[in-house]
Amino acid sequence: MSKPKPIEYADASPEVRAVFDDIMTRRNVPDVNNFWKYLANDPKTLKRTWESLKDVMAPGALDPLVKEMIYVAVSVTNNCGYCIASHSASAAKAGMSPEQFAELMAVVGMANETNRLVNGYRVPIDPQFE
Amino acid sequence: MSKPKPIEYADASPEVRAVFDDIMTRRNVPDVNNFWKYLANDPKTLKRTWESLKDVMAPGALDPLVKEMIYVAVSVTNNCGYCIASHSASAAKAGMSPEQFAELMAVVGMANETNRLVNGYRVPIDPQFE
Amino acid sequence: MSKPKPIEYADASPEVRAVFDDIMTRRNVPDVNNFWKYLANDPKTLKRTWESLKDVMAPGALDPLVKEMIYVAVSVTNNCGYCIASHSASAAKAGMSPEQFAELMAVVGMANETNRLVNGYRVPIDPQFE
Amino acid sequence: MSKPKPIEYADASPEVRAVFDDIMTRRNVPDVNNFWKYLANDPKTLKRTWESLKDVMAPGALDPLVKEMIYVAVSVTNNCGYCIASHSASAAKAGMSPEQFAELMAVVGMANETNRLVNGYRVPIDPQFE
Amino acid sequence: MSKPKPIEYADASPEVRAVFDDIMTRRNVPDVNNFWKYLANDPKTLKRTWESLKDVMAPGALDPLVKEMIYVAVSVTNNCGYCIASHSASAAKAGMSPEQFAELMAVVGMANETNRLVNGYRVPIDPQFE
Amino acid sequence: MSKPKPIEYADASPEVRAVFDDIMTRRNVPDVNNFWKYLANDPKTLKRTWESLKDVMAPGALDPLVKEMIYVAVSVTNNCGYCIASHSASAAKAGMSPEQFAELMAVVGMANETNRLVNGYRVPIDPQFE
Repeated sequence: MSKPKPIEYADASPEVRAVFDDIMTRRNVPDVNNFWKYLANDPKTLKRTWESLKDVMAPGALDPLVKEMIYVAVSVTNNCGYCIASHSASAAKAGMSPEQFAELMAVVGMANETNRLVNGYRVPIDPQFE
Repeated sequence: MSKPKPIEYADASPEVRAVFDDIMTRRNVPDVNNFWKYLANDPKTLKRTWESLKDVMAPGALDPLVKEMIYVAVSVTNNCGYCIASHSASAAKAGMSPEQFAELMAVVGMANETNRLVNGYRVPIDPQFE
Repeated sequence: MSKPKPIEYADASPEVRAVFDDIMTRRNVPDVNNFWKYLANDPKTLKRTWESLKDVMAPGALDPLVKEMIYVAVSVTNNCGYCIASHSASAAKAGMSPEQFAELMAVVGMANETNRLVNGYRVPIDPQFE
Repeated sequence: MSKPKPIEYADASPEVRAVFDDIMTRRNVPDVNNFWKYLANDPKTLKRTWESLKDVMAPGALDPLVKEMIYVAVSVTNNCGYCIASHSASAAKAGMSPEQFAELMAVVGMANETNRLVNGYRVPIDPQFE
Repeated sequence: MSKPKPIEYADASPEVRAVFDDIMTRRNVPDVNNFWKYLANDPKTLKRTWESLKDVMAPGALDPLVKEMIYVAVSVTNNCGYCIASHSASAAKAGMSPEQFAELMAVVGMANETNRLVNGYRVPIDPQFE
Repeated sequence: MSKPKPIEYADASPEVRAVFDDIMTRRNVPDVNNFWKYLANDPKTLKRTWESLKDVMAPGALDPLVKEMIYVAVSVTNNCGYCIASHSASAAKAGMSPEQFAELMAVVGMANETNRLVNGYRVPIDPQFE
């Protein structure tokens, strides 16, 4: 096994193409982005991930923009460069303004800071939060 | 230095009490929660953290509920038990419904999963995200 | 395999006892702490970890207090409760004052915050740092 | 919102320039590094972060070199490439020798290893650390 | 929204019971464990997670014991106490010996250590690994 | 201290060369990879790490392929790019098939997802796992 390589539509199996087609149709884009091309190395995981993502990111009790910002918050905390880039783009597409991005970053930064202050000071949970 | 201990209002310096008073007034609560009592061991960090938090979590381009949910998303990703408990409570107070919490968790879970698929497959950033 | 259990000196093999003896002698304590009793389930890892730790934590270009504070910084970042407790105790024993602990926490908090601001804003490395 | 871009001094608002000027004066450098130029997209976070950092990293109970090494320890644990590069440079400027860097890395490595041994063996906190 | 509570079979909807029944049948256990009872607060995520887990953890190119050990490795790295406990139990049920657990822990520890040495020394990827 | 630089065999001390020789002999390769060249800046850590790695990764209760896959699982969770690249290569050399890699990734992804669902729902450990 060498370094994973992307699978382009032209080289994809019917099973993979079916997923790619669904992504392109629903997102109204002419091609899928790299995440899906690499995941296509494992058609089962490709299909399961796409079905899950469609389900999880659909409008529901939270609107798509909020969901994309939560995705960015997690990706920034984990330092996943690709995920930060792609979900920042999705959030922007869903309407995130520069001011909203700035506040998102400020909250993510603060949360990462206070999470550690809590750890270091070994703060016990207050009874009212139990 | 033994295990950090909380500083109660009755034992606090005027400097610490000033912060505690501001927290109690703004949140309309009869006492501050443990995070602040432990942080009071370092009055400078207590004051700076409270001032920053007031600023960062205030309504702005994002509403307070969205900010609290982002705080929960980061705390869940980092597994900070205290922070999950206290910010879930804050989010609930800001109006988070059980359905919104459920969707928040689903997004946080998915993001943590796909962050690792991206890492493992070594997915390069698409030009359109640069 | 059920939940790991500690191995007490009385029940330990000669191989494990030799490590326990060395720990107790060097630290001048009447018993080893839980970390070593649990690690004793794997005598090879017990011995390797103790030998490495002796080596790494010995006074060198950095003094033992600085090394213990670095240990705490990492443990707080990773939220390892046991490690925070035990290495805070070791740092205190090595002379850490409450003021030093407070500054340590403040730096760890800030670093965790700015690490994420850097990730989110996708800041490229300046040429002078390369 | 496209990919964040740096704000150069020439294009900065008076508010941002005031922060940049303070950074350049205090650090005695002809320009600020990328972190500040990107953060300048959010003048409020720029100002708050700079004020906090000045405060937290100032000489106190811990000297600046120790603080910079703690910053590096956290950044290495979180794998923030930019932060490792910039704070290694700051630490070097504050006097860190290659031998000190080598010991810092060894401690950070060991702490990350033993943090996980503790997690996996589910080691309970000894009464003397409580 | 108060603290999440488990949903017991007796109180579960038909939709949740169907998942619980499938878990109990396939695992041949008289009750599901807490993870599923808490996830039952969100029937959609419950069902999706169970279907995914069945799929991902099934025997395939890797046998179930190896998969459970990988699960433990990730959970130890993330310090998820519940996950360490439950997947250590699953691994044991799948045949993991105490010697295998010991070696698993040693590898997880080393990997977490060398991951950070790589970060700190800023090691570039060798051409043969690209 | 500037950015760490690799130490090539030609420029290495006898102490470093001894480790390099052992690595090249045991792995039957004409040169060591970058990790070792950078670690050679600290001959003591170089030697200790190599001795530990030889010990930990040797065939034992777990075979080398399983150990390499565990290494990849940790490195993917931590997002250590170099480590993912080098240990994916080692796993491939030890016999990992593309199907095994795909299943490894799927398990690592799921584990990272469910770890967070557990955190967010604050799931208590079942008595049978204690």
